[in-house]
Amino acid sequence: MKYGLVGASGKMGKEIQVVFDEAKHSCVYTYDVEGETKIDAPELLVDFSLPVVLPKTLELVHAFKVPLVVGSTGFTPEQLSQLQELGKEYAVVQSYNYSVGIQLLLQCIEKVKGQVDGWDIEITETHHRFKKDKPSGTAIMMKQALGKDVPVSSLRLGGVTGEHNIFFGGLGETLTLSHTALSRRTFAEGVLKSAEFAIKKQSGFYSFRDVMTQSV
Amino acid sequence: MKYGLVGASGKMGKEIQVVFDEAKHSCVYTYDVEGETKIDAPELLVDFSLPVVLPKTLELVHAFKVPLVVGSTGFTPEQLSQLQELGKEYAVVQSYNYSVGIQLLLQCIEKVKGQVDGWDIEITETHHRFKKDKPSGTAIMMKQALGKDVPVSSLRLGGVTGEHNIFFGGLGETLTLSHTALSRRTFAEGVLKSAEFAIKKQSGFYSFRDVMTQSV
Amino acid sequence: MKYGLVGASGKMGKEIQVVFDEAKHSCVYTYDVEGETKIDAPELLVDFSLPVVLPKTLELVHAFKVPLVVGSTGFTPEQLSQLQELGKEYAVVQSYNYSVGIQLLLQCIEKVKGQVDGWDIEITETHHRFKKDKPSGTAIMMKQALGKDVPVSSLRLGGVTGEHNIFFGGLGETLTLSHTALSRRTFAEGVLKSAEFAIKKQSGFYSFRDVMTQSV
Amino acid sequence: MKYGLVGASGKMGKEIQVVFDEAKHSCVYTYDVEGETKIDAPELLVDFSLPVVLPKTLELVHAFKVPLVVGSTGFTPEQLSQLQELGKEYAVVQSYNYSVGIQLLLQCIEKVKGQVDGWDIEITETHHRFKKDKPSGTAIMMKQALGKDVPVSSLRLGGVTGEHNIFFGGLGETLTLSHTALSRRTFAEGVLKSAEFAIKKQSGFYSFRDVMTQSV
Repeated sequence: MKYGLVGASGKMGKEIQVVFDEAKHSCVYTYDVEGETKIDAPELLVDFSLPVVLPKTLELVHAFKVPLVVGSTGFTPEQLSQLQELGKEYAVVQSYNYSVGIQLLLQCIEKVKGQVDGWDIEITETHHRFKKDKPSGTAIMMKQALGKDVPVSSLRLGGVTGEHNIFFGGLGETLTLSHTALSRRTFAEGVLKSAEFAIKKQSGFYSFRDVMTQSV
Repeated sequence: MKYGLVGASGKMGKEIQVVFDEAKHSCVYTYDVEGETKIDAPELLVDFSLPVVLPKTLELVHAFKVPLVVGSTGFTPEQLSQLQELGKEYAVVQSYNYSVGIQLLLQCIEKVKGQVDGWDIEITETHHRFKKDKPSGTAIMMKQALGKDVPVSSLRLGGVTGEHNIFFGGLGETLTLSHTALSRRTFAEGVLKSAEFAIKKQSGFYSFRDVMTQSV
Repeated sequence: MKYGLVGASGKMGKEIQVVFDEAKHSCVYTYDVEGETKIDAPELLVDFSLPVVLPKTLELVHAFKVPLVVGSTGFTPEQLSQLQELGKEYAVVQSYNYSVGIQLLLQCIEKVKGQVDGWDIEITETHHRFKKDKPSGTAIMMKQALGKDVPVSSLRLGGVTGEHNIFFGGLGETLTLSHTALSRRTFAEGVLKSAEFAIKKQSGFYSFRDVMTQSV
Repeated sequence: MKYGLVGASGKMGKEIQVVFDEAKHSCVYTYDVEGETKIDAPELLVDFSLPVVLPKTLELVHAFKVPLVVGSTGFTPEQLSQLQELGKEYAVVQSYNYSVGIQLLLQCIEKVKGQVDGWDIEITETHHRFKKDKPSGTAIMMKQALGKDVPVSSLRLGGVTGEHNIFFGGLGETLTLSHTALSRRTFAEGVLKSAEFAIKKQSGFYSFRDVMTQSV
């Protein structure tokens, strides 16, 4: 597909271009702090920038009349409502986490949770020393998938991109589900999957979870 | 419930009695190399002995008219047929592996397998130095759940009861599902679950998988 | 030897009796929540109970005038001083962990610690749900080997005998040292080794490391 | 310094250029499958290519009369002898792994190996799907540190940079030493350190361990 990219010069923006290139999709439009480039009209728009850019992104979606995949973080409830509203006219995928493996981890948690009555459950998450919040948002999502509160141990360790473990412990056995993010590529691949999902939809407001589930 | 136990003096037999006792079930009948003890008529029969004992077990099921949970390993196809035949009259649960966690691992594998196109998959299994077969039967079950052949690395290490890992590796992330058996108790708990399942059934030939799925 | 056992009805107490029996040592005295039994005067005392029992144990050592092997965890610095003081009169072996592998782990920590300036260090320990103290005595020994305080995450999980990990994290790499106890027997064998070491000594305050190195 | 790079277009070749650039060293010569580029005469040569390229590298060292840092893996004993021979005339640093953590891992292995008589030992190594040689050069170094041959399981998995584990298994416990490389940058930094070490030497055949200890 021919796609446009808002936030093209950011770390995620660059990673997205590498992954989309490998999948033979062409970046024909970029919008950035450095300005605008246009080779052709995009068939889909990706936005990995900042919440402050959202008005411009909405304007672009209406101008090109194309689906949107958005991965900026920190939207206000009002901005999220604007995106949901946009979903009535165009296909919109919005998520704060585009990792395929984390979605699979959450699905496994939901599969297991009803079958381990009386077992203990513990979560650990390890991230680089620069991460400030504890526990990670992903650990919170894991507890939501589990449907109950369990202990979370947070480790801050060197340059670790991100690792999450959930342990289900019976008296005679332990089941462990683990996810390790190796690089930002993880997330770029989730964005690609979302783009290939969104381009087939007429309209609708979707989470990355919907993409994972409905793409099967 | 009041239950009978064929193979009561074996390692698994002893473990089963500990676990069933804790669940307030009474062992009222035993059959063993040392002979027979009978306090009362059992409502269910458990057999963790040897294939050579099967004729006696079949005789006992017919005599007491009760369900059977059987965990002996190494049956011939003919013996498995006899057990299936018995299932037409009584509830019969038969499995070579009564670990709850391994069943959950298999369910997770089935959940994940269709969503990781293009990822690499590797299995490792670690067992004590006395285990002779490679790869483990459980690793073979994991490949069956996956629906395709993948590499299995077998480690033989000291006194490890049993550990199985499956790695799903994308270019930017790794999802790992692991199971560790801590002791024979694992299996005794699966037998308990199967007994509590079987006692509610009129008839039928069930795997431990059926017990796990239908007990939910 | 004829030995006495404080904490005889605990999980470790039972395991110690099995291992000492196999080595032809006779348990002639027990002290426990259930009371006191005395067949004969012990030649050595083993204490695997709780810190609160220490005054009674000290009293018994003085009464019987015998060496002591103590494995209770969670002593206060004052209690440790009392044990060291006792070592001036009797042979005392004190350790929070009687496994060979933990001693090797501690040696590795001492090898690594001076070569990872600027790296982050984290410890995790996982034990069965019945373990009361946090962090484990072994985790405390690991921090002592390290020579500085680092975060310890304590997980309580099903029937896990005992697992300890130490993570050294640089910006580009992680080094992890892990120990897993497969059964309590491992510790009981270390206690036996320590008892057979202590009974030959007139006095002195010894660690399990001393037992290991001087027994070779 | 002005340096030459054999294997410049490989993944490690590119990473080395980034790290050397940041340290203000200039790449003035490259040799590659795509051919040869020469801006100036290099003062030092780095070779991160394949064993098959070694004859060309030796030729270049003799032509430019400069030190060599070589990180290709999978050399034959004969090729290693040729490099040792070269060390009589020029400074040569040769290692299958240029990370600090791997050196620490090797030191721990040497510490432990004499104290685990009768235990089983297993090594696993996991690398990205593009790695061609099995087992990894690092796994071979681990066996050398151990002083004996043990089984090595090689996993090839998605985008994993590099992970090595060594398991020491007794009947009652397991000790595991693990290293995870988070990015190739770690290795490139070790190569830089080695280059800055080698350029000060007249001659000699050095390991990365020599670089680490003598640089302190």
